[in-house]
Amino acid sequence: MQRIQIVDTQPAPLLVSGTVAYDDIITPHGTGTRLLGGSASYAALAASYFTEVRLAGLVGGDFAARDIQRFRDHAIDTTGLHTDAAGETFFWRGSYHENYNQRDTLETRLGVNTRSRPPLPPGHEATPFVLLANDAPSLQLAVLDQLRGTEFVLADSMNLWIETAREDLLRVIRHASLFVINDSEAVHLSGEDNLILAARRLCEMGARILVIKKGEHGALLFHAGDLFALPAHPVTELHDPTGAGDSFAGAFIGVLAALRRTDFDALKLAMLYATAVASLTVEAFSCDRLESAGIGEIAARVVRLREMVRLP
Amino acid sequence: MQRIQIVDTQPAPLLVSGTVAYDDIITPHGTGTRLLGGSASYAALAASYFTEVRLAGLVGGDFAARDIQRFRDHAIDTTGLHTDAAGETFFWRGSYHENYNQRDTLETRLGVNTRSRPPLPPGHEATPFVLLANDAPSLQLAVLDQLRGTEFVLADSMNLWIETAREDLLRVIRHASLFVINDSEAVHLSGEDNLILAARRLCEMGARILVIKKGEHGALLFHAGDLFALPAHPVTELHDPTGAGDSFAGAFIGVLAALRRTDFDALKLAMLYATAVASLTVEAFSCDRLESAGIGEIAARVVRLREMVRLP
Repeated sequence: MQRIQIVDTQPAPLLVSGTVAYDDIITPHGTGTRLLGGSASYAALAASYFTEVRLAGLVGGDFAARDIQRFRDHAIDTTGLHTDAAGETFFWRGSYHENYNQRDTLETRLGVNTRSRPPLPPGHEATPFVLLANDAPSLQLAVLDQLRGTEFVLADSMNLWIETAREDLLRVIRHASLFVINDSEAVHLSGEDNLILAARRLCEMGARILVIKKGEHGALLFHAGDLFALPAHPVTELHDPTGAGDSFAGAFIGVLAALRRTDFDALKLAMLYATAVASLTVEAFSCDRLESAGIGEIAARVVRLREMVRLP
Repeated sequence: MQRIQIVDTQPAPLLVSGTVAYDDIITPHGTGTRLLGGSASYAALAASYFTEVRLAGLVGGDFAARDIQRFRDHAIDTTGLHTDAAGETFFWRGSYHENYNQRDTLETRLGVNTRSRPPLPPGHEATPFVLLANDAPSLQLAVLDQLRGTEFVLADSMNLWIETAREDLLRVIRHASLFVINDSEAVHLSGEDNLILAARRLCEMGARILVIKKGEHGALLFHAGDLFALPAHPVTELHDPTGAGDSFAGAFIGVLAALRRTDFDALKLAMLYATAVASLTVEAFSCDRLESAGIGEIAARVVRLREMVRLP
């Protein structure tokens, strides 16, 4: 596994906890069945370009060995990826509308995702950087409870949990170092239509550092009263938006772990790489493009993004 | 009238042609009646911070002398602002929805705006920089026909003309040096949902340089195959979005006239100042905030925008 060398520092290890799933996906471009999906799958593969990743999650007896191999091919430590042989891997079937801005959930089978997960493997609870990828807030809190001496925790979430597990989600937000959310979720959770006011409200609700993702319009980073805005990398080959946010989060904290820094400049660099990586994810079904991209394509998109926002 | 000195060059004069109107506006924040409006009013006042502006338009006998004085207070040459004493000034009454993203037209009285306009005053047809602010494409073409030796023409438009005067609008686009349009209009006119593909299509349709405005998400500049993206200046005091696009266009070409340059770097600077000026316009009804801002507030927003997009 070849990693992107951003600075001449030994990267810190990163723990990625979240869902590992199979998806059936229908888009205007085609359909795919039993595709490798889940927040932790995308996030771990994205982060693997930047640092050593420890994957924590739970799959069922139906999970294919070849899919575990895909993580291992990216030098991802799968010691913390447990198998419940009697259970079924979390399954989601969804369909995207013509313009990809909306999707319908056609079927969800939670499978092993209803169960509490085995504890983190010995040593993993002291990983310095941790990503709580999108998951039930109660499961995110269970991971937080096990951490010892972690330096930085990034938490991601989704609309479903704002509806069904608001109090637990707010607890996650208060305990995380950085919270990532998309624009409609920020409006939903804060009750503010204006994103700047929504961000202010989310910080009052406990977010320390906040990133609001805006899809094709890029992302906003709120840090200690300062604002950084970055456009998206232009995408003309949108094939499957699934996992864009998860790989954004994975690359984001992967870069922080690689830099071993979490100051405003480090966060800006993390957002730059995260934006580049997310733009690759959506160009193919599942994790395919994310896996195949390689460090050259990521670096090229970072150069292009820098050029796109360069002011004279 | 104090101007913003961007470079140590004598600014080139700018001709601004478009509508000068009265608006009744209803917003969630309040209502205003017989407010100074119209594309050329906003654009001329915005441009006046950067260069000498010659305003061309037609008003009715009801147009108040005090509103002409508002232009003169900004050192705007009103020789080309004709009065048809027997006619009525173009009037629009509209209402904005709760989130300001949509508006309803409640009443339109075209008044003198149905008539052909008197020719440009002597000398104005040779103005080096010209803004065709949003107006009937046939009236924009009539101004284009009079121009002699103009270096750069920026044309703006709106959805109404895509529906009702598509062929004339396409003629305007082909003759302009730069065309400005908002995101939903770009999709509508090009038939492409994806903004990058929409821009490509609009360039095939004849746009030489293209700016797509995205409201709170900023703007995109397409120039000779290159892309520049700038976020919006954050607005938390949205009071009346009317005229944001017109003042964006006015400031944009005002800066080009001030620089006497139209290369990619000059266009980027123009977009930076245009974004700052547009963010002021929406903080009050009508042109009020735009007129009162002064060069200090514009310069401060430019500094903030630069800081917001600065990468380490």
